[in-house]
Amino acid sequence: MQNVDYIIRADYLLTMEGDLSVIKDGAVAVTGSDIIDAGIFADISKKYTSQKLLSGKNKVVFPGLINTHTHAAMVYFRGLADDLPLMEWLQNHIWPAEGKWMNEDFVNDAVELACLEMLKAGVTTYTDMYFFQDTAGKKLEKLGMRGVLGAGVIDFAFTGYAKSVDDYFINAENLITAWKASEFVFPCIAPHATYTCGTDNYKRANALSEKYKVPIHTHLAETQFEVAECQRRYGKTPVEYLENIGLLSERLSAAHCVWLTDKEIELLAMKKVGVAHCIESNLKLASGFAPVAKMLKEGVKVAFGTDGAASNNDLSILGEMSTAAKVHKAVSGDPTVLDSKTALLMATRNGAEILGLGDKIGSIKPGKKADLIIANLEQPHLMPLYDIYSHITYCLRPSDIETVMVNGKIVVENGKPSTMDEAEIMDKARIWQEKIKSS
Amino acid sequence: MQNVDYIIRADYLLTMEGDLSVIKDGAVAVTGSDIIDAGIFADISKKYTSQKLLSGKNKVVFPGLINTHTHAAMVYFRGLADDLPLMEWLQNHIWPAEGKWMNEDFVNDAVELACLEMLKAGVTTYTDMYFFQDTAGKKLEKLGMRGVLGAGVIDFAFTGYAKSVDDYFINAENLITAWKASEFVFPCIAPHATYTCGTDNYKRANALSEKYKVPIHTHLAETQFEVAECQRRYGKTPVEYLENIGLLSERLSAAHCVWLTDKEIELLAMKKVGVAHCIESNLKLASGFAPVAKMLKEGVKVAFGTDGAASNNDLSILGEMSTAAKVHKAVSGDPTVLDSKTALLMATRNGAEILGLGDKIGSIKPGKKADLIIANLEQPHLMPLYDIYSHITYCLRPSDIETVMVNGKIVVENGKPSTMDEAEIMDKARIWQEKIKSS
Repeated sequence: MQNVDYIIRADYLLTMEGDLSVIKDGAVAVTGSDIIDAGIFADISKKYTSQKLLSGKNKVVFPGLINTHTHAAMVYFRGLADDLPLMEWLQNHIWPAEGKWMNEDFVNDAVELACLEMLKAGVTTYTDMYFFQDTAGKKLEKLGMRGVLGAGVIDFAFTGYAKSVDDYFINAENLITAWKASEFVFPCIAPHATYTCGTDNYKRANALSEKYKVPIHTHLAETQFEVAECQRRYGKTPVEYLENIGLLSERLSAAHCVWLTDKEIELLAMKKVGVAHCIESNLKLASGFAPVAKMLKEGVKVAFGTDGAASNNDLSILGEMSTAAKVHKAVSGDPTVLDSKTALLMATRNGAEILGLGDKIGSIKPGKKADLIIANLEQPHLMPLYDIYSHITYCLRPSDIETVMVNGKIVVENGKPSTMDEAEIMDKARIWQEKIKSS
Repeated sequence: MQNVDYIIRADYLLTMEGDLSVIKDGAVAVTGSDIIDAGIFADISKKYTSQKLLSGKNKVVFPGLINTHTHAAMVYFRGLADDLPLMEWLQNHIWPAEGKWMNEDFVNDAVELACLEMLKAGVTTYTDMYFFQDTAGKKLEKLGMRGVLGAGVIDFAFTGYAKSVDDYFINAENLITAWKASEFVFPCIAPHATYTCGTDNYKRANALSEKYKVPIHTHLAETQFEVAECQRRYGKTPVEYLENIGLLSERLSAAHCVWLTDKEIELLAMKKVGVAHCIESNLKLASGFAPVAKMLKEGVKVAFGTDGAASNNDLSILGEMSTAAKVHKAVSGDPTVLDSKTALLMATRNGAEILGLGDKIGSIKPGKKADLIIANLEQPHLMPLYDIYSHITYCLRPSDIETVMVNGKIVVENGKPSTMDEAEIMDKARIWQEKIKSS
């Protein structure tokens, strides 16, 4: 009998490996940061002992959810401006607010609120595109959550962060070298979009990503405006343009990908570009319906992103799963597409894989890191239960998530954060709210 | 100073009356079943005293939500079959399960689970289309929730409920006469749809509705199949057909209305037919996108329905509001449609009005019944707060709802039901689950 730190037992265990079959009365053995074993409890209990047995009736265990596109600090602009077109919303509301308020202090406080919201909703890893990522990184190390932190790149200077465009690259390279060895922070470089970032800067970002073997993350084909603007500037669609300048590779994850031709879908599949599908943001900003059913069919790896809370308006991947699984049925006129298993696969293993973290996280598998969720199924809205995948995709709510483990440590217990002071974080949010409101 | 049963005070009060402006530090005075007064707390506290002051920081008070289309008892089939086309889902899964299990006992137990889920999610009134509504009525009286209970009518007999088609009408008339005077149960007659209910039965249902001045409720223009079938049988679309046989009136509320021509939208507006928009069910069954933006523009009264939990898969109107407010922006390509105020108006006052209950419920107004919700805004996913309507539509979750009052009585307190035994209801659901699963 091998002693392990935790044995986690539940009525339902979804490893998101193999044929995705449900393990009834399953268990996971965890030691240190690692998953040691997973299977039926009867087998696990023969091989391992532990002082800490997490167990209970009517529970389900599944991998931590992965948010493959957000701007975490923008949580402080949640609901600041709604029901507006993307460019008006950006140019008249969000960019002025960022111009006025966004600094290192802002990022430091806002990221903590975003992490609190995400961890309580079972999101254990997020991909970010923003600035002051070193500050975000320190926060993540402190509270024990993973982030693929993309240092933003745009064509113009940004007082307080980048006096010149060169500074974006200096900051990015510093971020990469500083966090290369972290278990929580995975540095990334994030040129914003084809309408804010020119060819030189895209190529420079790609060179940095290549040099250090770190992911590159960008917005791509989000709106018809973006496509038209790219056509005007370069005579090419955004996908064609990025292909032309050598950006499409397995290292690239692209957010949105709403306006794609069939040929572009094939190209993304062939080049192994990962897609962060942000359904709720795309709907709310009336950007359009990404061709997810087609992308999945053509073998494009698609995962979910919430986008920033300012355009969603929350950071829940469960919400994205439920919305996407429903909307794409109506869009394609086929109620069999994006079934509940596929939705959870996209939210876990696909997410890890498009971030280059497929060997570390995204499923419950011996040798991977212990990032997992225990949810309580003892809720009126989860009764009765015939199909656990259906319940997770269509019915599970963040409030049903009881325990969240990241890297073998419990960060949410009985729905409350273990590494954060919830009241203090909300007090800080209110102070910023009053400042931002008054401006 | 007048003594009242309750004074309910909150940082934000949304009456859903007048210009919908937010009352900061507002209060509602309630006595017996009635709202006596509503306004700013400074005024209310000068006019009224109460032994019971419900108060607290960071709370919002708004009218109880109204679910204008469901089949409550079908909650026992939640997740039984998913990711399937409507007719396959109905014919191969739902109808056989109903044929085998649906009886008075089933309805008695299942309705209680549905009511528990709805009340906890702030739904204080629902419109139902099903059978054994007398049983459901007794349940509603017992637990203190309102229902517009539609006695179903179809063209074929249903063992255990209707030995012949006549029995549907006998049962409906008995329901109407038995519950005419109830504060909680509002009888209604509910012919199923144009493909299951012939002209004679539609006309007979309408005559009953006319005789007793009770609402009539039907499925309408839900799928392309339904439209084609109606064309085949009658040479008319479902809306044209119902118009032709005299069904379109202010007493009619029609669920779905997905496949409508512009002319039909005008007709529904002119005839004052209410529409129960069931976005999540329409998406999940790939039925299509109802033209809600157009309907609202043309003056059709549109409210929200969850449909049964078997095709949704929950009974949360907050979920419908959020989904609809986002999806219709993308469908119409206009991010300004269905803004957050409109969504809450649809979920409250519009709902009451299309059910013929506009004088009783749907807003917080002196003389109306005290059906209201207190939600707790002290949550990470509701921070910061710039616009309370935006937060309710896009961010509020059922778990944020603390107190629910129906007819002046508290039925949910601190998120827990006061008139129901939650554990017992869930135990019963599990017993039915095992029976249904084994069949």
